[in-house]
This record gives sequence, structure tokens and C-alpha cells, in this order.
Amino acid sequence: MKEIFDILLNRRTIRNYLEKDVSDEILHRILSAAIRTSTTGNMQVYSIIITRDSEKKKELLPLHFNQKMVIEAPVLLTFCADFNRFTKWCRQRKAEPGYDNFLSFFTAAIDALIVAQTVCIAAEASGLGICYLGTTTYMAHKIIEVLNLPKGVVPVTTLTLGWPAGIPEQVDRLPLEAVIHHETYRDYSSDDIDKIYHEKEQRPDSLKFIRENNKETLPQVFTDVRYRREDNIHFSKLLLKVLKDQGFMNQ
Amino acid sequence: MKEIFDILLNRRTIRNYLEKDVSDEILHRILSAAIRTSTTGNMQVYSIIITRDSEKKKELLPLHFNQKMVIEAPVLLTFCADFNRFTKWCRQRKAEPGYDNFLSFFTAAIDALIVAQTVCIAAEASGLGICYLGTTTYMAHKIIEVLNLPKGVVPVTTLTLGWPAGIPEQVDRLPLEAVIHHETYRDYSSDDIDKIYHEKEQRPDSLKFIRENNKETLPQVFTDVRYRREDNIHFSKLLLKVLKDQGFMNQ
Repeated sequence: MKEIFDILLNRRTIRNYLEKDVSDEILHRILSAAIRTSTTGNMQVYSIIITRDSEKKKELLPLHFNQKMVIEAPVLLTFCADFNRFTKWCRQRKAEPGYDNFLSFFTAAIDALIVAQTVCIAAEASGLGICYLGTTTYMAHKIIEVLNLPKGVVPVTTLTLGWPAGIPEQVDRLPLEAVIHHETYRDYSSDDIDKIYHEKEQRPDSLKFIRENNKETLPQVFTDVRYRREDNIHFSKLLLKVLKDQGFMNQ
Repeated sequence: MKEIFDILLNRRTIRNYLEKDVSDEILHRILSAAIRTSTTGNMQVYSIIITRDSEKKKELLPLHFNQKMVIEAPVLLTFCADFNRFTKWCRQRKAEPGYDNFLSFFTAAIDALIVAQTVCIAAEASGLGICYLGTTTYMAHKIIEVLNLPKGVVPVTTLTLGWPAGIPEQVDRLPLEAVIHHETYRDYSSDDIDKIYHEKEQRPDSLKFIRENNKETLPQVFTDVRYRREDNIHFSKLLLKVLKDQGFMNQ
């Protein structure tokens, strides 16, 4: 097995998978390691829904905007903030739970997300590839129906998991200094912004991306095509409604 | 270096640290690996604030409810959802950003949290110990002042980082089957709850915990002492106000 820093530094998100299953044994090994991840007050207020059934994947496909990994990956894992199990335990033990509020949702979301990231690293260390599906928070209201999630449970992210069909080019990252701050936040001057994004903006893949989208600058691809204000507002409203409907907005 | 599954399976949260610094070199190596973590649309909408200064730690101490790791650990890392940098870049490139809404906050929080978990694993693989401080979301409004966080930036979690002073007992976890579901969520019956929590409830440390808190059942320690409804409601209101004040509630 490769050294952990090699795995972390050389990772790529994998969107193309071999037609080869991930055994229950490997999945079990990954998940058993992942549940050792830190969790608030050792409450483990998360659940992981494993999707292997192809009919279920077809139901989830449009909810993830028809990204083909959803049906091509042998395994999907939907990570949920889950206070349902813990609340039931409280009620069965003469304790009055008070976890139907936004702080509790966010606490449970943290639990779910950091477990998800441990799953990614354990999977990559096992030779598997992963891809996060950000669509989970956009379409949470529909995913809740398909996965039959009760009150107290909200999906926060999904991973596709499988054996990589080829190794794509590694994408760029900002220089480390761009994302860290020492002691206090040093806000970015215009010059800082120019410097931080300079390399990214000069990359052939960035220039191609601008051209393909008929835009003038790289940020315009994000603001006008990929992550548009009107979509963000629409999905913000839906997500806040999900939190209310799932019983997390009683504060 | 140990095999990654050994690291994950044998980890413990570390709350006691040696009086020994973490070198810039080691920290740089960990953070350089961590920024390879998946990020929404490769936007990297997070920032990491590094605290080493003892005066700064003293300011943060009460905001983390006087947990002594805050001053005893050589390094604190505050992970923030950050759309400030990206928004500034958009504005400087004739693009109109639309990231002042709840979905964008949650997207940035996911980015920040999964980077934090990669930092944990890279740190533990380097022989360091970590502890998550859940108080970050409780006291975000004050942490924002101390760390000078501008609009568009919200702290979502904090890690203490240092060399372990001794290895504590490993705490329990629920059986894996308690937190996973196959294809759809199978809601828990009373019997399921009894079974899932049985081992935890019989543990000597749990029984001691109940006794020390003068309670009758283990969940009562959570509902009446550790994570009380009135506190959750209070901190929910504060956190939602932080999201509004930091400019993330325009939907």
C-alpha cells in the first residue's frame, strides 16, 4: 500500500469507472475504518445509505443532474445528517431530546461530512476512485423521497465509488499561501487576487474552458454558467425548506 | 510510516499535548497535501487560519469554553467557509457573483470541513494528535471578531494540533450496521434501538458517566447536561444571525 502523503498529493477525482464491482469485503473495510472518524460528543449523528441496485441508481440519476457516474459507478454512498436514531434512543430512555434546530442540523452535517472524507481517503488508499456529487444539497428534497429518509435526516453529500478506468490529468490548485492566514485573516488586495489566480488563469485548460463557454474571463464561466445567482437562490430556498420539513428549524 | 488503515482504526482524539512545537515544515507538508482534497467546481471556497501566538490563543480560549487544549496545543487551525476571495476575483474580472445565499454558505462549509478531515488524517499519519472543537459554530460571532473575518467568511470548525502526551483509551463506536442502510433508509424499531445502543450502555465508562452526572440513563446526560435544548436553540439563533451578518442569507 502506498504512503499516505503520496495518496493525498497524487489524488484525482475519478468520473470514469471500470465495469467491475466493489466487493462487500472492501466496502466493509473502508466503512469500518471511517466510523472511527471524530464525531460530536461521540453521538455519531449521521447515516450512510449504500446504493448498489441499478433501479435505485436510475431513480437517483436525474436528481444528480444526469451525471453518468451515478449509474456507472458500482457504489453510491449518500451521507446524511441524522438525529433520528439518536432522538429515538433519547425517547426510549426517558430523556427529552432537543435536536430539532439549526445548530443540531449543522452539528450532524459536520459529522456526516468528515466521515465522508475519511471514506474517500480509505477508498483511494485501496485503489478505488471517488467523486463528490454537489447536487445532493440541490436536490435533497427529492433524494429524501427516493431513499425514504424520515424526519431528522437530511442528505448532505454523495460519493460515487469504483475502480478507475484510467487516470485523468491532475487539476490545478491555488498556491497554499492563497488559502491560509497567519493569526488573523489578511484580506485580499487587488494585487493579491491577481497573483493568486494568475497561474490558474494562464492554464491551457482554463483558456479552453473560457472559449468553450463563449466568455471573456474565467470567473464569468462560474457566475454565468456553472454556479449562477438564480440557481443558487432557487436551491437555497429548497434546501432551507428541506431543513424545515425534516424538523431542523425549531429555534 | 504506518499503514493508513492502522492509522484510521487505531486513532484517538488527543486532548493532552507535549510542550513541543509543530515545525513549519511539518505543518506545511500536511496543509500542502490537504489542499488536494476535493472542492466544489475547483473553487476552493475555504480558508484556514493558523493560530500559534499565545496571546491569540488566550483570546480564543473562552470562545472555546475554556477547553485547555486551546492554549496547550502548539497549533490551532480554524477552518472557514470563504466566498470572500472568490467573490473578489469575480468582481475584478467583470463577473457578477451570486454567492451571498444559504446554498453557497453550505457549499463552502462542505469544502472547509472535508479539508479539515484530510488535515486530521495527514496529521495523525505524521504522529500528531488532533481534537475537533465543536464550540466553533456556537461562538462563530466572537471568533469572527478575534480572527478578523470579513463578510463572506464563517468559521465552521477548529482543530487543535500537537504531539500527543500519552495515548488515551480508545472510545467506543456503534456497530457499523447501526449507521449504514442498504438501498433505502430502514427506520429503527424499539428493538433496533435497544440492540444498537446495548453495548454502549453497558460499558463501565458509560455507567460512570451516568453516575457522575446524577442521571438515570445515558441519553439524559446528553439531553440534560451536554447538549441541552435551550443551549441548542440559543446557539442556533446566534449561528443563523452570523450567516445573515456575514452575507449568506440573501435568498
